[in-house]
This record gives sequence, C-alpha cells and structure tokens, in this order.
Amino acid sequence: MEHPENHEQYKGLTVNSGVKQPPVVNPYFKGRVARKPLPSAGELVEGIIKGDVTMLSRAVTLVESLSADHQAIAQEVIEKCLPYSGNSRRIGITGVPGAGKSTSIDVFGLHVLRDGGKLAVLAIDPSSERTKGSILGDKTRMEKLAIHPSAFIRPSPSAGSLGGVARKTRETVVLCEAAGYNNIFIETVGVGQSETAVHSMVDFFLLIQLAGTGDELQGIKRGIMEMADGIVINKADGDNVDRARLAQAQFRSALHLFPPTVSGWMPEVLCYSGYYEIGIAEVWQMIDRYFDFVKNNGYFEQRRQQQARYWMRETIDEQLRLHFYNNPEVEALLHDREQRVLGNRQSSFTAARDVLDFYFSKNIH
Amino acid sequence: MEHPENHEQYKGLTVNSGVKQPPVVNPYFKGRVARKPLPSAGELVEGIIKGDVTMLSRAVTLVESLSADHQAIAQEVIEKCLPYSGNSRRIGITGVPGAGKSTSIDVFGLHVLRDGGKLAVLAIDPSSERTKGSILGDKTRMEKLAIHPSAFIRPSPSAGSLGGVARKTRETVVLCEAAGYNNIFIETVGVGQSETAVHSMVDFFLLIQLAGTGDELQGIKRGIMEMADGIVINKADGDNVDRARLAQAQFRSALHLFPPTVSGWMPEVLCYSGYYEIGIAEVWQMIDRYFDFVKNNGYFEQRRQQQARYWMRETIDEQLRLHFYNNPEVEALLHDREQRVLGNRQSSFTAARDVLDFYFSKNIH
Repeated sequence: MEHPENHEQYKGLTVNSGVKQPPVVNPYFKGRVARKPLPSAGELVEGIIKGDVTMLSRAVTLVESLSADHQAIAQEVIEKCLPYSGNSRRIGITGVPGAGKSTSIDVFGLHVLRDGGKLAVLAIDPSSERTKGSILGDKTRMEKLAIHPSAFIRPSPSAGSLGGVARKTRETVVLCEAAGYNNIFIETVGVGQSETAVHSMVDFFLLIQLAGTGDELQGIKRGIMEMADGIVINKADGDNVDRARLAQAQFRSALHLFPPTVSGWMPEVLCYSGYYEIGIAEVWQMIDRYFDFVKNNGYFEQRRQQQARYWMRETIDEQLRLHFYNNPEVEALLHDREQRVLGNRQSSFTAARDVLDFYFSKNIH
Repeated sequence: MEHPENHEQYKGLTVNSGVKQPPVVNPYFKGRVARKPLPSAGELVEGIIKGDVTMLSRAVTLVESLSADHQAIAQEVIEKCLPYSGNSRRIGITGVPGAGKSTSIDVFGLHVLRDGGKLAVLAIDPSSERTKGSILGDKTRMEKLAIHPSAFIRPSPSAGSLGGVARKTRETVVLCEAAGYNNIFIETVGVGQSETAVHSMVDFFLLIQLAGTGDELQGIKRGIMEMADGIVINKADGDNVDRARLAQAQFRSALHLFPPTVSGWMPEVLCYSGYYEIGIAEVWQMIDRYFDFVKNNGYFEQRRQQQARYWMRETIDEQLRLHFYNNPEVEALLHDREQRVLGNRQSSFTAARDVLDFYFSKNIH
C-alpha cells in the first residue's frame, strides 16, 4: 500500500501516514496493489539521516510490519540509526479523554517549534485500549501541526500487545531522532496500562488534568499522578479560571504529601488553556527548568541508561513468558491447575511447579 | 536447632521463634546440636488443625527452610491445610520507620483480641530491605502481644529474594489460618518493593502516617498512598493533635483527587495515638466497615481469587526468569549485550533477541 505522503497533492506536507486511505490500484495490474520496491536498509538510513520524511515514514512502516523480511530490514535500519539517536527531549503526555490532549499537543508543539528544531508526535496505545479513533486517528485533531513542515505525526501502531506496540514506538523514537527530530512527544490515553510503558521511554512525563474533582477524574488510572513530573490543568479560561486555580491548589497540596521523586525534582502544577493558548510558555518554562535540573544532577543520563536496560530485560521477560504460555499443552495444564488453585484444592506454588516441571521436562531435558 | 518455644521457661507462651538463641548443645554428643526428630506431614497437619502452636512453628520453619526434604514436607502440609484456610481477615500494615508500627500493631492486636479469636502477626521484608533489627527482630517491640496466649508472632523469613520471602509469608498465612488464626497482620517497612507483594496477599492495606509534611514522609515510597484502603495518622496526642488533624485534612483532600478504587471503597483517613491508645476502636470500626462493604459487593471474594491467580503466575514468571538468568553462559552473553545497549551500539530489542536465541537454541532445539 502506498503512503499518502507519496501522493502529489500531499507533497511537501508531513501527514499522518497511518490514516486509512484507499489503496492506490494500478489498472494495468488487474486489481493488484501497486508497490514501490522496498528501499534497502542503507538507502533508508541515508534518507533518514538527511531528514527525508518519506524515507522516515517508510522505515517506521517496516518497524510496524509483522513480516519477518520487513523486520529484518527494520532492525538493520534501527541499528545503523542508533549512533545518531538520543539527541532529543522525550516527553510523555497523558490525560483522560476529554482533557483536551490533542488541542494541547497542537499548541505545545507550535510553541516548541517557534525556537526552530523539529517535532515528532507519536502515540503508544494498542488498539484494544483505544476508544475508537481517539488516538491520532484523525489528523485534523492537530490542525496546526498537521500542516507544519517541521512536524511529523505518526499514530500508534494499531496491532499487537502493549509490549509489542511499546517496542515499536520506542524504535520509532530512534529513527525520528536520527532524522533530526529534537523534540519527541508520546501521547497516551491515561486509562490503561500504557502509562508505565510511556513513563519508561520518556525524560519527562506530563499529566493533563481538568479543573473539578468529580466526574472528570473518574477515568484516570490510579498511580498515574505519582508518575507525573508535571501536572497541568487545562481549560483555565473564562468562568473556569477559579475552579482551575482551586484544582491547582489541591493538586499542589496533594503532591506535597508525596515523597520526593528519585530525580530530586519536585513536580509542579500549572494552569493553562489549550484552546485560548494561555499559559503555554509557562508550561514550557517548567519543562525547561526540569531538563536543566536533571542534566545538572546527572539524573537525565542515569534515567536513559536505566530505560535502555529496562527495555532489554522487558523484551527478554516477555519472550520467555510467550514461549511458555503459547504452548498449547502448557496452556491446558495451566488451566487445569488454575481451577484447582481457585477452588482452594492446591497451593499457588505447587500448581505453578506442576506446570513448570512439565514445561522444562518437555522442552529441555 | 531447637526453637525457644521448646524451652521450659517459655512453656505456655507464644514467642518470637525467629529470635536468635544459642543452640542447645547436648554435652554427650561432643558439640553436635541436639535435634528433635522431624514430625511427619500428617502429624504436623493434625497438630496445626488442633491449634498446637509448637507444631505450627515447626511447620513454618519447614516452609522457610532451604532444604529440599523440608520443602517437600512443607508443601504437603500446606496442601493439606488449604481446605481449612481462608477464614481470616488479612490486613497489611505499612509505614516508615519511626511511624510507630510496632506499638500500633501491639494495641491494634489487643483490640482485635478483645472480641475473642486469634491473631497472627507476620512480616514480609527480606533482610536486604531491613534496617537492622527493625522488623520484628525483637519480640519486646510488641510487649503485650508477645505474652498474649492467642497471638502468634513470627518474624520475616530472613533469607532469599523478595519473591521467595513473599511466597513463604503467603504459605505461612495458610498454615496460620488452618490453625484457627482468624486475624492476620502482615507488617512491612514501607520503603522498598515489599508493599506490592503485601498488597497482593491481603484484604485490607493500612498505611500508618505521621503528622507533618516534611522529613517524616521522606522515607516512604511513591505509589504506596494509592494502594492504601485506609490511612491512619499516629501520634495524634498532646501538642500534636492540631498537626495530626491538619494532616488528616490534607490526606483526605489528596485522596479525594484520586479516582475511586476498583472495589468502589473510598479510603478513609483517621487520627489515633498508639502510645496513649486513643482512637483505636475507630480505626477498627473503619476496617469493619470495609469488610462489610467488600463482602456485600462481592469484591472480597473477587480479590482473593485474583490474588491466587496472581501468585501462581508470579511463581511461574519468576521461575522462568531464574532459569534464564541463572545460566552462566546466558549471563556472560547478557552482560556483553547490555554493554552494547548502554553504549548505544545495539538496540534493546536485538540485544535481547541475541541472548534469547542463544538460550533457546542451547536448551530446546
């Protein structure tokens, strides 16, 4: 399938290449989809390093592909891009649906790009966690960034487990950085398991909240507030300013009860309005302060190294689990033993032991 | 080594059997330690069901033992005790060192025992996480419970990984319940990784805090507050009452910002004084309300089933990891690949893939 950025009418624009488009059918091939030949890993890398958006998009598509051939090329490209990666601010942005994430990312993004540089906006929610179309499914959600020449918007890979999606997003970060994107935003919905994954791949984790302590907060997952390096309260405009200020005071007081973060940074709470573009500079000054702080005390580098190690271990652990749980005989025995455990007829430990013994005896000895 | 409860002077008392005592040397055996013969699994189970504290203690010692023979008996005993287990309130109690956990557990325990019944106090911190002697290391820390005939105090197993210690504590819960202990307290220090483990084995998770928002909170781990089903502020006495009330208001306001818990229960915040025994009944009325609430809405049973499943999966995952990481060749390759990842010379994913390929090719095909 051709990507929209290859169409004449999109030339010069960075568009959301994940938006579903009808495949371009070449009439001479009797209904077969016309394909451009795959570039080699070397060509892709060369293009990426030069900042060629088409090459970047094609490489990301290979990263997301389930085909083994594509994966082989993708891994080679990532490996060659690694030495050029790392030079960005990676910022995770989360918030419940309705908090105004898209509008906020749009104006935050424009603000960041005022100083020059480039911005990539990625997302990390596997489709199972998405309310239909809410995550970057529609490029019109970020109107200004969508037509900005220095912005690259890419939706979440749509298939696979959270682990798989997270890996692909992380690998896409490497490619974007190699292509010169020195600001990376990673969006997530704030209602599922994705936040821990995002938190493990960014330098700064921003939580968008709304004023009010009632229904608006219902959707957000417990524990997220304690991950945040900054909390920003959106829609602090018009009649809503007082409520936003009150929420700000409440969140500040709540954060004050938390112990200090590992970095030593004290998370800040600010008000802003994404729609009216009020307080945007102040939010970004906070983020600047954070980066100064953690680059000075060494935590920035330390966190990145921890993350690299974490993802390696995480990949290993996930594959070990898959190898075990995907075995049909193991699965059957597991189901049987689980019923015993739930019926208080066997301890969790000996039940686990039974299945492990079967697995290891079958596979190894 | 004989246990203190077998000594004449301790007869009739339930004592902390993990306190280090000089081994009883039989002079006729030239320095060899005299051992009582191991009871059979059947004898142990019979004794436990009758509520025999010595048999319970001996069984717990087998659970904690690293010897394969002991483990075999222990697992048989646990299996046979399972049908008699489950009939207790399992309550996790955490708080930073200095929050007054021991004194609080002492008075909470006495309060619980006023209505009859029995109480077991266990702990879950592996030695690496303990500040020396702070966890039940000294039975004088719970003066009243230590001499109470219906209380059984057992320190944390002292050796092993958190996973191992957690499993042993969980298995000890089964034995205690089979022995008729209908109240189980599990203590943890609140500064390490143990809280998640405790949270995964109790019905109610109580966080002990102190008034004041400064240094007192430094030690506690982020994320614990969101796990708590109740927060109780200790040392609300004398000059400190106003500060405690202020802290109560602050914690209430903070909890109000959190979304509801899965159970639908809204965690409560209360003040008390462990030392002056003020407000103890109120804390326990809250816990009664909680149990009424979750037993009525079905969450009690649901959480226990989830926990049983969790521990089975956790055991499997831990063993899969150990089998992988404990292989010396895997370890060497892992170290090499990790260095490449940290040096930005290889991606986390292909590095993990290299080590996995080696592991599976070596062991399985």
